[in-house]
Amino acid sequence: MPGYTHLFIPGPTNIPEQVRMAMNVSMQDMRAPDFPELTLPIFEKLKTVFRNKSGRVFLYPSSGTGAWEAAIQNTLSPGDKVLMSRFGQFSHLWVDMAQRLGLVVDVIDCDWGEGVPVEKYAEKLSKDVSHEYAAVFATHNETATGVTSDIKAIRAALNAANHPALLMVDGVSSIGSIEFDQDAWGVDCAVSGSQKGFMLPAGLGILSVSAYALEARKRAGFGRTFFSFDDMIATNDSGYFPYTPATQLLRGLSVSCDMLLEEGLEAVWDRHNRLATGVRKAVGAWGLRLCAKEPKWHSDTVSAIVVPETFDARDVIARAYRGYNTSLGTGLSKVMGKVFRIGHLGWLNEGMVATALSVAEMAMIDCGIQIEPGTGVGAAIRHFSATAAPATAKVA
Amino acid sequence: MPGYTHLFIPGPTNIPEQVRMAMNVSMQDMRAPDFPELTLPIFEKLKTVFRNKSGRVFLYPSSGTGAWEAAIQNTLSPGDKVLMSRFGQFSHLWVDMAQRLGLVVDVIDCDWGEGVPVEKYAEKLSKDVSHEYAAVFATHNETATGVTSDIKAIRAALNAANHPALLMVDGVSSIGSIEFDQDAWGVDCAVSGSQKGFMLPAGLGILSVSAYALEARKRAGFGRTFFSFDDMIATNDSGYFPYTPATQLLRGLSVSCDMLLEEGLEAVWDRHNRLATGVRKAVGAWGLRLCAKEPKWHSDTVSAIVVPETFDARDVIARAYRGYNTSLGTGLSKVMGKVFRIGHLGWLNEGMVATALSVAEMAMIDCGIQIEPGTGVGAAIRHFSATAAPATAKVA
Amino acid sequence: MPGYTHLFIPGPTNIPEQVRMAMNVSMQDMRAPDFPELTLPIFEKLKTVFRNKSGRVFLYPSSGTGAWEAAIQNTLSPGDKVLMSRFGQFSHLWVDMAQRLGLVVDVIDCDWGEGVPVEKYAEKLSKDVSHEYAAVFATHNETATGVTSDIKAIRAALNAANHPALLMVDGVSSIGSIEFDQDAWGVDCAVSGSQKGFMLPAGLGILSVSAYALEARKRAGFGRTFFSFDDMIATNDSGYFPYTPATQLLRGLSVSCDMLLEEGLEAVWDRHNRLATGVRKAVGAWGLRLCAKEPKWHSDTVSAIVVPETFDARDVIARAYRGYNTSLGTGLSKVMGKVFRIGHLGWLNEGMVATALSVAEMAMIDCGIQIEPGTGVGAAIRHFSATAAPATAKVA
Amino acid sequence: MPGYTHLFIPGPTNIPEQVRMAMNVSMQDMRAPDFPELTLPIFEKLKTVFRNKSGRVFLYPSSGTGAWEAAIQNTLSPGDKVLMSRFGQFSHLWVDMAQRLGLVVDVIDCDWGEGVPVEKYAEKLSKDVSHEYAAVFATHNETATGVTSDIKAIRAALNAANHPALLMVDGVSSIGSIEFDQDAWGVDCAVSGSQKGFMLPAGLGILSVSAYALEARKRAGFGRTFFSFDDMIATNDSGYFPYTPATQLLRGLSVSCDMLLEEGLEAVWDRHNRLATGVRKAVGAWGLRLCAKEPKWHSDTVSAIVVPETFDARDVIARAYRGYNTSLGTGLSKVMGKVFRIGHLGWLNEGMVATALSVAEMAMIDCGIQIEPGTGVGAAIRHFSATAAPATAKVA
Repeated sequence: MPGYTHLFIPGPTNIPEQVRMAMNVSMQDMRAPDFPELTLPIFEKLKTVFRNKSGRVFLYPSSGTGAWEAAIQNTLSPGDKVLMSRFGQFSHLWVDMAQRLGLVVDVIDCDWGEGVPVEKYAEKLSKDVSHEYAAVFATHNETATGVTSDIKAIRAALNAANHPALLMVDGVSSIGSIEFDQDAWGVDCAVSGSQKGFMLPAGLGILSVSAYALEARKRAGFGRTFFSFDDMIATNDSGYFPYTPATQLLRGLSVSCDMLLEEGLEAVWDRHNRLATGVRKAVGAWGLRLCAKEPKWHSDTVSAIVVPETFDARDVIARAYRGYNTSLGTGLSKVMGKVFRIGHLGWLNEGMVATALSVAEMAMIDCGIQIEPGTGVGAAIRHFSATAAPATAKVA
Repeated sequence: MPGYTHLFIPGPTNIPEQVRMAMNVSMQDMRAPDFPELTLPIFEKLKTVFRNKSGRVFLYPSSGTGAWEAAIQNTLSPGDKVLMSRFGQFSHLWVDMAQRLGLVVDVIDCDWGEGVPVEKYAEKLSKDVSHEYAAVFATHNETATGVTSDIKAIRAALNAANHPALLMVDGVSSIGSIEFDQDAWGVDCAVSGSQKGFMLPAGLGILSVSAYALEARKRAGFGRTFFSFDDMIATNDSGYFPYTPATQLLRGLSVSCDMLLEEGLEAVWDRHNRLATGVRKAVGAWGLRLCAKEPKWHSDTVSAIVVPETFDARDVIARAYRGYNTSLGTGLSKVMGKVFRIGHLGWLNEGMVATALSVAEMAMIDCGIQIEPGTGVGAAIRHFSATAAPATAKVA
Repeated sequence: MPGYTHLFIPGPTNIPEQVRMAMNVSMQDMRAPDFPELTLPIFEKLKTVFRNKSGRVFLYPSSGTGAWEAAIQNTLSPGDKVLMSRFGQFSHLWVDMAQRLGLVVDVIDCDWGEGVPVEKYAEKLSKDVSHEYAAVFATHNETATGVTSDIKAIRAALNAANHPALLMVDGVSSIGSIEFDQDAWGVDCAVSGSQKGFMLPAGLGILSVSAYALEARKRAGFGRTFFSFDDMIATNDSGYFPYTPATQLLRGLSVSCDMLLEEGLEAVWDRHNRLATGVRKAVGAWGLRLCAKEPKWHSDTVSAIVVPETFDARDVIARAYRGYNTSLGTGLSKVMGKVFRIGHLGWLNEGMVATALSVAEMAMIDCGIQIEPGTGVGAAIRHFSATAAPATAKVA
Repeated sequence: MPGYTHLFIPGPTNIPEQVRMAMNVSMQDMRAPDFPELTLPIFEKLKTVFRNKSGRVFLYPSSGTGAWEAAIQNTLSPGDKVLMSRFGQFSHLWVDMAQRLGLVVDVIDCDWGEGVPVEKYAEKLSKDVSHEYAAVFATHNETATGVTSDIKAIRAALNAANHPALLMVDGVSSIGSIEFDQDAWGVDCAVSGSQKGFMLPAGLGILSVSAYALEARKRAGFGRTFFSFDDMIATNDSGYFPYTPATQLLRGLSVSCDMLLEEGLEAVWDRHNRLATGVRKAVGAWGLRLCAKEPKWHSDTVSAIVVPETFDARDVIARAYRGYNTSLGTGLSKVMGKVFRIGHLGWLNEGMVATALSVAEMAMIDCGIQIEPGTGVGAAIRHFSATAAPATAKVA
């Protein structure tokens, strides 16, 4: 099909040219004496991106799911009681993992479209005077519904209750794109992956761990080797890995971290907010609504857009893919057919958002949804133009 | 600057993934016994693309300008009288080349925005009973103004006058994107380059030559070696070249020709017409006009859009580049500051056109031009949706 | 440092041009309707490479170590008794993993340089009339010492004892390069990774599982999610994955499997044997010996070469790297400083082996080891020339 | 065919990883305001490589042949008398070009295997008191025979005769690899191409011109546009080109110049001398001889090796290609069948030379030539080891 394939799923995201170039490599020896010249700076850059000064970052050849499992295996024990909430496919899957690995999960179910119920967490934590909860889990950005939760408030609840539980956060689709501050928020395990804000192909699980969580590994009761912190620690400090690392991705990661840090984390977050706002203006102009129930939960990395009840969102997605060479995100599980998603994270600018919105318009119109052509993308254009940096001096 | 750089100049055009992959190569021996397995099919594919059954195609490591010169050097002689017309920067430059190489050029100057004055050509040819004109030159698609001329009609004029002059056509920004039929139109030298419809980096001049033009080389009086047809012919038939060819581009060219032929030339032309119509609908919706003076001259590969008189188009272009990471084409020479150009040829689809139009809107608005956000891109969306292939069966 | 870096470690191996080109991609949607067109054929091709007709192959974004763990987690339970042997760093590490995951390991220690002690296995299995061993583990190719073991004989021992234990084989550095026949040998879990015989970057654990092992998953007592067979099975059949797969590597894997199958597995194995024999001829000509104690254990994928006692092999390796831009494999653990290794697997031909041997000669000479220049590489050249396919017809 | 294809022709040469990565790009706007940030430094770097302080360098999308023609067209006029010599295929072709373009060529024919006959040049120049010679041509490195000539001595002859003729030098296969000093040697037009010492794909003609030659353009009588200095000068100073440049190659050229300058030109020349000496030691050990008749003419970038009289060198080349996946250079024209060539220029190190020599040995042996396996490569190994930089501190 002619023309570029437009990728607007919430990960994998579009890969910057620089990253793609950096990964176009022949293989190298991961035990070479100069290999640490590649790897050691990456760990430092990642600590800056996560804002994790005192702990450390682990890099697994895996996926975000692998990093979820690494976080649990290395800090908890079978039978540990943990507090979790469920309001979308990814928070659901993490609960499922915890249960299958043998944790005793106190799950709070919320409507899909809501975020972490901080008040309920606070209540439960304050009541847990015997500190039965070994850990509190939170999905920072629920990719399935486009909902961002308030991690800082969860830390506040833990502090208010003077509770020693670990704070485990799924930041797969948030970190590197929207505000995240591991140290300030007291996050113990921050889970991410390569294929979202880090703008790489899938294949790396990235886990940033606090000093407190590192201590916890000493009492963790899960058998583990592949994901073992200890094996990593024993080799990472000298710049090596306990088994063959995904060197090609490390080369790309070095570049993508540089890009994030050169743009500046706050600038990256602002950019995502500005671009996401454009998407939300478009949704409003179309007369549609987001799956996220309240503005406080609006995600700056992904928008799940609810189609009118008589339509199936999968038709819109199929039309965009087959007719316009564009990947939109599908609705997962409970919201399948009800929403389509636009991923707006990573290597993104105004023109790319305009592409996504324009194709969404065409696909919806083709499916019979009443949309005035140009209204959505026009609303985004208006927003982008109104909020753009001032034009430089004129030619004439 | 974050996000992809959007490229909407009328060449170099966007390179398909497949072509980019094909060019990511280590070097190879251009005298290897299996080298012709790469090269010989390319010549055949090119003849299909040009619709040149009886002649041959030459591939120079050069540019379209080089192929212009090759056409002249190999078929004409210093002092030959030729008929040309001038109505844009590229037709101007070809006249300039002809004059500097020593041809006696009868130039018809037209307004920029018009095309080849076929009636005047017909008149001059019919009067030239002694056949003083050795060749008639025509710019099929004037890239500077977005004007396509009627080559078939020029052939008709030559035939009507029973005139033996060679028909030389600049198809750099037309061939491979809009209708071109060398055999049917009796084009003797058809000039193209790699970086337009052939969807490659710049670096190849492509010259398709009729059997009649091949004969003309025997009496051509220009000294020549680099561009010599004879040197090429002596080696090309066995799949080799008289000097080191640009093998990397040949690898890409093999793939890009396959892509054109698999899509089907008519389908490629239709796609360009449909996408270009979307652009023209946008221009109308903006209340602006094209540089091309009449619909018959509308180019399906590039649109030169006239900004309101009190504005400088260069500001719009600078704004798009600096503010939105997007390259639009500048106005050249006489129309500098008066027009900006959107290249819509090559590896292109609806989503990409929507990007171009959206960025153009933002840039114009930022420069103070009165544009209702979304009107242009909305008009294009309406057109694309109305003319899209029917949606396949629904999911639900 | 000028010139190509020569990579002769036993993985990652040299990546074919075709694979590198195939991985030079923009990202794609792993939930797209046509994604299975990429993935489903890969599973089939892998089954052909493993010679696994009745079972299935799992692809984890991980490493060979991850696939080791996947094999254990999905087929065994904590407390299960297993039979293993240890004669090199990688067989050591698998034992270590089994113990740390809670298996009760009956370890047979052998000298480094020997292989799986089949007779001892046979004896233990025949005595285990109550079938306490749930599984028997074997390292097909011990990468640390260059020792290949006889898996077929282990299957014979199991059959002779009529023993139901699972046969777990580490084929990371053998499969795709030397003979392996999962069905004929009755291997239940065959572990491999992307960065050896499959000629890809590291990042994929590849696990080929018999129907018998698939059944075993139903009683396996390990908690598991990331490596869970069930989660994979639930999605793989339709061409998808339970979490984001490493699509870029899948694209490469599709091509590398095609290459193996087009060359023909037997031809691939023969090529490795011929090239490895050349290396061994060189070692003999140098007056040195291999770590592998007997010819029956000679590995066709890696040779561990013992340096004279008064030298440190790490000096040779450092010299090759710093002085000649060449990575040789280091001695690990017990044989550190005693051996250097030449990896001769994957995308390899005579010229590449000659490079490795030539650089090894220079590095050894520079370190003071008495080597007559050209003797080793000359012995290999003699072997290669003597065993080459006959020259085609002469030119003159 | 498995394993890397080994490329040892005297151009195109092996492309460094860094250059390949730099060329793996999407297209960009060659009229963008920041385009000069890429191009202007390239001109400066090239002047450093050519050692041309006062003149300028032109970059044509063409080949070395194109740059030959550019040099002639821009500095001479039809009918000009020039002095040339012919002793190999490339000096022959330049003479042929000069004649076909209308120069009156005084050709001195030498045996193939000799270089520029400096004494005869000196004699002719001293006798040319009326300064009829407008230019003196010299092929610095005759790629067909592996002969390097003494350009400095030609300048001395011109100076001794106080002769104003231009000094035109073909440095296609020398510049960037062996000593070249345009200013010190008073070279007026130094011709090169991208695919040799500049370690890029073919596609760029590189012409470095003295201030004196730039003056000459004002009286040059050849019609020209594509290769016109004036058109280039008018745009290059601001970082642009008169027609679409081969941007992808410019990106690579920027990197390859950096690499040459970082290694240091003298270091690059020394490396080539050391590697070439290794090749020559091998030829001696084989009992063969070079086409170059005397050591003073030995080229450090290419060796043409004479096979024994009863053999056809094309068989050796075919055998290397078909049997060992290796491209050696063929004998051209007069020496076809008599010599095979090993290109040893560009991105090269000891291991690569060892590959070339090893394959040459295998191919010769397979063809029946009496070669003791390992003698040639052994002689090179001995030389490389004896002349290597001292090993760094030992591990043990």
